[in-house]
Amino acid sequence: MESTSLEKTGFFARAWLPLKSLPEKLKPKVAELASQIIKLGKDDPRRVAHSLKVGLALNVVSLLFYLLPLYNDFGVSAAWALMTVVFVFEYSVGATLGKGLNRGFATLIGGALSVVAHQIACLSGEIAEPIMLGFFVFLQAAASTFIRFFPKIKAKYDYALVIFILTFSMISASGFRDDDIIKIASRRLSTVLIGGSVCVIICILICPVWAGLDLHNLIAANIEKLGNFLQEFGNEFFKTPKEGETEDDRSFLQQYKSVLTSKSTEESLANHAKWEPGHGQFQFRHPWNLYLKIGTLTRQCAYRIDALNGYLNTEIQTSSEMRHKIEEVYREMSLESGKALKELALAIKTMGQPSAATSIHLKNSKSAAKSLSSLFKSNVWGDTDLAAAVPVATVASLLIDVVACTEKIAQSVYELASMANFKSIDATLSPEKSQIRQQDDVKPPAKVDCPYVCVTVNEPTPAISGNENPSLTMATRISDS
Amino acid sequence: MESTSLEKTGFFARAWLPLKSLPEKLKPKVAELASQIIKLGKDDPRRVAHSLKVGLALNVVSLLFYLLPLYNDFGVSAAWALMTVVFVFEYSVGATLGKGLNRGFATLIGGALSVVAHQIACLSGEIAEPIMLGFFVFLQAAASTFIRFFPKIKAKYDYALVIFILTFSMISASGFRDDDIIKIASRRLSTVLIGGSVCVIICILICPVWAGLDLHNLIAANIEKLGNFLQEFGNEFFKTPKEGETEDDRSFLQQYKSVLTSKSTEESLANHAKWEPGHGQFQFRHPWNLYLKIGTLTRQCAYRIDALNGYLNTEIQTSSEMRHKIEEVYREMSLESGKALKELALAIKTMGQPSAATSIHLKNSKSAAKSLSSLFKSNVWGDTDLAAAVPVATVASLLIDVVACTEKIAQSVYELASMANFKSIDATLSPEKSQIRQQDDVKPPAKVDCPYVCVTVNEPTPAISGNENPSLTMATRISDS
Repeated sequence: MESTSLEKTGFFARAWLPLKSLPEKLKPKVAELASQIIKLGKDDPRRVAHSLKVGLALNVVSLLFYLLPLYNDFGVSAAWALMTVVFVFEYSVGATLGKGLNRGFATLIGGALSVVAHQIACLSGEIAEPIMLGFFVFLQAAASTFIRFFPKIKAKYDYALVIFILTFSMISASGFRDDDIIKIASRRLSTVLIGGSVCVIICILICPVWAGLDLHNLIAANIEKLGNFLQEFGNEFFKTPKEGETEDDRSFLQQYKSVLTSKSTEESLANHAKWEPGHGQFQFRHPWNLYLKIGTLTRQCAYRIDALNGYLNTEIQTSSEMRHKIEEVYREMSLESGKALKELALAIKTMGQPSAATSIHLKNSKSAAKSLSSLFKSNVWGDTDLAAAVPVATVASLLIDVVACTEKIAQSVYELASMANFKSIDATLSPEKSQIRQQDDVKPPAKVDCPYVCVTVNEPTPAISGNENPSLTMATRISDS
Repeated sequence: MESTSLEKTGFFARAWLPLKSLPEKLKPKVAELASQIIKLGKDDPRRVAHSLKVGLALNVVSLLFYLLPLYNDFGVSAAWALMTVVFVFEYSVGATLGKGLNRGFATLIGGALSVVAHQIACLSGEIAEPIMLGFFVFLQAAASTFIRFFPKIKAKYDYALVIFILTFSMISASGFRDDDIIKIASRRLSTVLIGGSVCVIICILICPVWAGLDLHNLIAANIEKLGNFLQEFGNEFFKTPKEGETEDDRSFLQQYKSVLTSKSTEESLANHAKWEPGHGQFQFRHPWNLYLKIGTLTRQCAYRIDALNGYLNTEIQTSSEMRHKIEEVYREMSLESGKALKELALAIKTMGQPSAATSIHLKNSKSAAKSLSSLFKSNVWGDTDLAAAVPVATVASLLIDVVACTEKIAQSVYELASMANFKSIDATLSPEKSQIRQQDDVKPPAKVDCPYVCVTVNEPTPAISGNENPSLTMATRISDS
């Protein structure tokens, strides 16, 4: 007996144990999930605001059901207003406006055409009517679906085409069972308009998220990240590796990596920004395409920086005399282009004309590149074999590329400052910078004086650019300056 | 009188002229549009088939309206079936299945929860009911919208969350006006299931487009493009530029550029492929992630090739003795890795084990890289200054990288061949290749013998890779071989 009771106790205890420990096992998982949620919200509190806004918009539109007079007007069609809110309400104002306008116009055109199709089908008699309707639905769906394959149309009007197919098919089919097709079409149009307007109004009035502002800040932040890397590159490349130093200590150098993959973010932000009305310091026709151009140039520069990053742990096998010489030049090139980039980032951020310091840094970096070229021609390398010279030479050609990239970025930022009427330099000058300006009256590069250049944005191939040969262009570029 | 009549004639003639010429002006535009449409269809005839399939699916679902017994069952809810077809029918089977399953499950869960919410709200009395309902709608919409910000969830279940919000809000709100909420919910679920099933059936039965097959072919084609470039690179680099030769003559060399930007296409194809059932030679759990790994390695190789492409027009300023020596080695490295890549592409295309010739080409390219290294250490460069040596040295380090990349790609392809049970080599051997095999009994690289390696797919940074220093790894890599 005793042993059986013990066995029983043992059985229950065994069964109970995992259940008892369950809350303790779940605890860390729940805690982790909670911390993830908090992190997501803290990283960008606008996400929380957006979630609440969607909830609010759905509730406002639900009034079409809850308030009897409204429900009497719209009936079950009120569901379309809910649907519009769910599909149209996007994170940024631009995306919401773009989808709302696409949906509104597509519903209008789809509705009108389906009414016409219905009238034609009615003329053909009761038996032929569904056949005619089916034919029209087939025709418009196939044609619209095919049009969606055009890349340019897909980029801008894909959603409109989907809604066009939907509206046309649904009103045609509903019209077959309900003769008052005009009423169906107008109810659908008005509910879509109500839903769309609620989205747009709530999106703009409560904590608006402007895609344009996000793009503006992203571009400035990316340029700044490259500047940070370049300011530190000289120190890191020439320092002797210390023991006990881990990769973590240099994680600040790796910030630039996010720039390498920001292309699609920039493009979608620019697409949305074009739908946005003027807001803050941005006019309606703000030159958003120029941001894409600057983004592309920044990414080209980032590809070189990524290559440079690969040489950070190289042991430099040259004579100490030579090492001393190149150290000075390499440091100067990298530091000065880094400073120039950070000045440019600051100019974009504050929407002021780039400071005079920018052109001084640009000039310094170019003259350093020039002295590097003569250093290489001087042939003081002695018996250094080529295998040892390869990294030194490659870093040189990458740095020369970086200097050239920096100048291109500077030109585009000057162009942007002129086209977007950035504040004049005097308004944004800090006392320190105005001193620099008095010391040296350097003009921005000549090309900048003709601001209205046609902008074509093509993402060039990454890595070392197209048909440009660093060592050849080294000569041309330097003789230009 | 006469002059007035003449004037009148003149007036009409002037008004008529632009109208008369209108058709002629429109003609070229219409012709251009037509040729664009024809090109789009010819490039991939499956696009035409897809458009027709969408039209067919919409017509099948429209029967819910046209056939009276069906309409009596579903009523206006039949519109949800149309809506499901419009939103769920995608180009590939995988994408359609993924969206259909997302939509089906989200409707099921959203519907069930909204019924529960409705019951709770009903308990709270007539006045409090809409307030409770509004609260629930707000809560679920805000929570679901916030969850959509998690990147992992967004990638896979974004559509499910949107449909969940929609279903919950709509059934809750409709339930307020119509007490038979179970009927509303079940009608919505059944119409969504009908629409989804029609999509999936038509998508699979009529000219199915398999995302998996597309991914398979894309990866093989990309490797082949790199092979084509490398096979020609030696010739192009060392030939003296002829007069009258334009960029067009070498456009075949630029095919590789599409590889640089194929990342997002590969990822979305792989995402869709994972939803697909077994088809043709592909099992249900085909190792699609391995394709992404191969794709990433191929792109890394393409970044080097892009850099090589930048050196095609360089004038080589070395002594003719040196030039002769490097020419032989450079040609061998590039040609042999090109051939190896093309063999690998062929193996993927035919789903056969990589041929024995592959490992011969790999071996040859590695031994060429080895002799290059000793050539560089021999210091026969004489007085060549460093500025002139930079391009030669950079091309060398890029070629060494390409050889290493090729080997990595080969290893992953061997891994794929083993995991996906590609046909044994004997079954696919052409007579020519079996001769090669008899001549030389080379084994594939040793690492390949352990096929079940954990695959982590991270897109590495483009351009010259992360922390690898070509000149340093040159030594290690060659001493390995």
